[in-house]
Amino acid sequence: MVRRSLTTPSREGMINIDALVREVITEAGIKDGLLTIFVPHTTAAITINENADPDVQRDILSHLAKIIPQNPHFHHSEGNSDAHIKSVLTGPSVTLIIENGKPQLGTWQSVFFCEFDGPRKREIWFQIIAA
Amino acid sequence: MVRRSLTTPSREGMINIDALVREVITEAGIKDGLLTIFVPHTTAAITINENADPDVQRDILSHLAKIIPQNPHFHHSEGNSDAHIKSVLTGPSVTLIIENGKPQLGTWQSVFFCEFDGPRKREIWFQIIAA
Amino acid sequence: MVRRSLTTPSREGMINIDALVREVITEAGIKDGLLTIFVPHTTAAITINENADPDVQRDILSHLAKIIPQNPHFHHSEGNSDAHIKSVLTGPSVTLIIENGKPQLGTWQSVFFCEFDGPRKREIWFQIIAA
Repeated sequence: MVRRSLTTPSREGMINIDALVREVITEAGIKDGLLTIFVPHTTAAITINENADPDVQRDILSHLAKIIPQNPHFHHSEGNSDAHIKSVLTGPSVTLIIENGKPQLGTWQSVFFCEFDGPRKREIWFQIIAA
Repeated sequence: MVRRSLTTPSREGMINIDALVREVITEAGIKDGLLTIFVPHTTAAITINENADPDVQRDILSHLAKIIPQNPHFHHSEGNSDAHIKSVLTGPSVTLIIENGKPQLGTWQSVFFCEFDGPRKREIWFQIIAA
Repeated sequence: MVRRSLTTPSREGMINIDALVREVITEAGIKDGLLTIFVPHTTAAITINENADPDVQRDILSHLAKIIPQNPHFHHSEGNSDAHIKSVLTGPSVTLIIENGKPQLGTWQSVFFCEFDGPRKREIWFQIIAA
């Protein structure tokens, strides 16, 4: 397992981690297989979506905030139940295909660390399995 | 990695790809392991759910459209931010268990390609890892 | 593949299965790799989230019920379309990293079986791949 850390700049954000993903695969020296990316946090998540127009990320975050508002009817006393719910729905991990030593992503896809309760220092864990 | 393509017939739909999944596993000749199915698109997704009553798929798509409407308050100019959000929440990949050369699914489960911004020509990527 | 069963006590609930996960890994004797946990049901799911304050699970389930109510406008005649939709959004499987014979989870993370249409007897399937 490989561990990397990152610092998120605001309460909510989608941070492109493609460069980190490529670096981890290159260092492992694996040509073909699977890469599991895992977030060891309960108010963050990992997803894959469009990298071209930043308005897409803005629309994703603003609509999630609309259907899962950070409002006071929740019971959990830390005031971040909205972040836990977004984490469950987005998911704590993704599994990517590796071919020719590169992560296989579609033309418009990037891997994003989703911060729902920052700013914080966060970790991302990686496991590579050769095919 | 194995690549297959499919053409989706309408803007939204859940297309059963069980036959494709079985075919990919049979061609690989792997008896036991994992199969990762990955969609290289940002307005589509992969899920597993009920195959018996088509009303379940109808209810899933109509309720997603209710909580994530294709409305004009989004910033992304292509008018398909709803599809990007559904893609994030449903997820770009699933990982299945292979045993005795067959995908292991529950009695009522099938694998579905979820189209949220069709009709389009789409790809599905598969990676098999032997146990 | 390893199969385990559990009985869920109510219509909705998040059941901590950490002990089961550790047991399956120990019995397999694998030190490093991946564990895929798969739910062969269409009205249940697997997730990873906070184990410390039970109010977090309460907030997750109550907010999901708010945005996906069990109401009569659905077409599927069994009256559990809400459970199918929650299953799609939460997801039928998670993949964990195994290191030193242990599931790698963050400080506040546990693995939860999510019941959305119980009480029922349910199964959980596990596949381990060595790194």
